[in-house]
Amino acid sequence: MADIIHRIGIKASPAKVYAALATVEGVAGWWTKETTGESKAGGTLKFRFVDHGAEKGRMDAEVVELVPGKAVRWRVKAGPPEWIGTDVTFALSQDGDTTVVIFGHRNWREAGDFMAHCSMKWATFLLSLRELVETGKGKPAPDDLKIDNWN
Amino acid sequence: MADIIHRIGIKASPAKVYAALATVEGVAGWWTKETTGESKAGGTLKFRFVDHGAEKGRMDAEVVELVPGKAVRWRVKAGPPEWIGTDVTFALSQDGDTTVVIFGHRNWREAGDFMAHCSMKWATFLLSLRELVETGKGKPAPDDLKIDNWN
Repeated sequence: MADIIHRIGIKASPAKVYAALATVEGVAGWWTKETTGESKAGGTLKFRFVDHGAEKGRMDAEVVELVPGKAVRWRVKAGPPEWIGTDVTFALSQDGDTTVVIFGHRNWREAGDFMAHCSMKWATFLLSLRELVETGKGKPAPDDLKIDNWN
Repeated sequence: MADIIHRIGIKASPAKVYAALATVEGVAGWWTKETTGESKAGGTLKFRFVDHGAEKGRMDAEVVELVPGKAVRWRVKAGPPEWIGTDVTFALSQDGDTTVVIFGHRNWREAGDFMAHCSMKWATFLLSLRELVETGKGKPAPDDLKIDNWN
């Protein structure tokens, strides 16, 4: 098993960062505009990636943990085969005026090129999350930063 | 053992990307301005991170592989304890007008918060590498994007 892990600091309260991770509207503001479903324990979130009207990707995840101001965990149920069964995790802690987010995309079966692509993409989406929380405007797909020939 | 891996595409020839990875001047243009030493097999590269005149970090690495247009590998010999014995790797391949770089920082003993920090930092330095190669100007330290309360 292999994990993608990233650490980012956001100048905002844990409550504000948590809101961007634990609500449909929040996630739609930094990951993909096409986020729907129910962000409650046991609920399903649906993420679609659309480019010029064409669907480029989709994932469904079950919300398995929501601890206000502290933690969010999703388990991927549908999407690219490499993603199924993986967990996407966010752990929040406060250090002065900064909320530190430890992000994880965990339990990949293979640390291959697609994981390397996703690791780089997640890093840019975490910068988008920071922008959203600090400035009110992120760069969710389809306005996301393209990082390679896979998008 | 745990690895950081990232994938990025750069619109330039493999030779041009390789030059930014395999020469002291190249690395000084995207990672840290304070890069010195000899980029040849068996040579030592010295990386210093300086902020407002104060040294914030330093690493020394042995150049263990240089394959023109294809691959660069460094082995860290001195620096943060977590880094010693790790390998930093770049594998290049061409896809049309894009050079795809598979970056690795491999053989971490522990996938902890410091690795998560470094994973995020490497992602931003790879964006800096792309900027350097595509536009002529990267964002090496100390002009690097700060990503958390560890810098």
